[in-house]
Amino acid sequence: MAGGYVSASTGKAVRAVLFDVFGTVVDWRSGIAAAVREFASGHGLDADPEAFADQWRGQYVPSMRRVREGGRPFVTLDVLHRENLDEVLAATGVDVASFGAGELDGLARAWRFLPPWPDSVAGITQIKKAYIVGPLSNGNTGLLLDMARAGGLPWDLILGSDVTRAYKPDPIAYQKPAEFLGLDPGEIMLAAAHNGDLAGARAAGLATAFIARPHEGGPGQDANLAPAADWDLIASSITDLASQLQ
Amino acid sequence: MAGGYVSASTGKAVRAVLFDVFGTVVDWRSGIAAAVREFASGHGLDADPEAFADQWRGQYVPSMRRVREGGRPFVTLDVLHRENLDEVLAATGVDVASFGAGELDGLARAWRFLPPWPDSVAGITQIKKAYIVGPLSNGNTGLLLDMARAGGLPWDLILGSDVTRAYKPDPIAYQKPAEFLGLDPGEIMLAAAHNGDLAGARAAGLATAFIARPHEGGPGQDANLAPAADWDLIASSITDLASQLQ
Repeated sequence: MAGGYVSASTGKAVRAVLFDVFGTVVDWRSGIAAAVREFASGHGLDADPEAFADQWRGQYVPSMRRVREGGRPFVTLDVLHRENLDEVLAATGVDVASFGAGELDGLARAWRFLPPWPDSVAGITQIKKAYIVGPLSNGNTGLLLDMARAGGLPWDLILGSDVTRAYKPDPIAYQKPAEFLGLDPGEIMLAAAHNGDLAGARAAGLATAFIARPHEGGPGQDANLAPAADWDLIASSITDLASQLQ
Repeated sequence: MAGGYVSASTGKAVRAVLFDVFGTVVDWRSGIAAAVREFASGHGLDADPEAFADQWRGQYVPSMRRVREGGRPFVTLDVLHRENLDEVLAATGVDVASFGAGELDGLARAWRFLPPWPDSVAGITQIKKAYIVGPLSNGNTGLLLDMARAGGLPWDLILGSDVTRAYKPDPIAYQKPAEFLGLDPGEIMLAAAHNGDLAGARAAGLATAFIARPHEGGPGQDANLAPAADWDLIASSITDLASQLQ
């Protein structure tokens, strides 16, 4: 029987620790900047890779919101990443039509191969000894699978947003994994670097752990530098979370 | 990029090897007989454990067929195993009401903790180096997760029948995993010990591998002793399949 830590807020013993992925487990900014840098040098494109990564990530929440609020049917995050790339290129004055479609598809797939933070694999491996571990991400299953295999993330299972067909902070996105695991939502802990995500998880009945990722947004990061509420656990890394869960 | 082996029947390079579980990866008969033996001795029940296991398994296909043919809404295999236990007990003249409900629930959960065949973990570990690996089973996600953690099955991901909401040989059960993985059905190989399952997979466009499990049904096994068609690969074990896929 997996689990052990009892959440004060849910009153339940946690049996599964599920992780936000972009920013919490992997360093999207460095990974995307590296992919943009390589693409730009290969295509004679004049772009600041970090700024480009920030602009691309800036489209993330608005593009999911249109799905969440019913403005369009569910499409996967792969599709949104690809569409958002066109928007960012156009906004920076680049003629999208000057590239072969396949070239931009390849760049958009960089979101599938982002590097884990240095503590991620060790921390998840440790937590896995006593708890079920998996992503609870807006990424789709195929994206999360490629990322796990490339980065060595030892998930027990991967249920992407295309399985739940819901984007966080929709309560269904947090509650549906519990149903598949045969657990009460309170037996699941979300570990995330973003206060808004944790607020959504708590509202949906999950236990919560804040993982500080002060470098996620680069040197100018001004959000999520500290926990904004009394989350069950506050950790400086996933290895620190592993120690606290023991 | 995972994969390598090119299927002659689908014309595609296989990227994911998905496994039937009950009988192919785990030895359900020994596992259930052991659980029944323990339960019987603890409850003064007069039952032949192996015969009981066979009767219980005998209810498996008919109970799923009622769901598949629309006779009842989708329920998980956990639920069917529990109902079928009542039926088998009643058929052998045992008063089901003489047990606490929780006691029978515990016995039914034995299907979640079946022992892998001796070659399963080593073979799947080997195949995982070059291919995506996972179950393609009628088991539900929570059941397959408990089994994987208990038996050390190193799946990349687990998408149970409660995700696809379809029981094999419904074509949806074979095709939906491809959709979640972002693959063509022909890029997925089903590895199974049962010719009927492989026929369903081939009809749905998948590549196929027969794994011989001549002891699955005990000494009296008379079905699935040999491949019944020209499946892409014919293997004597999962480690043998791993060698052939290299």
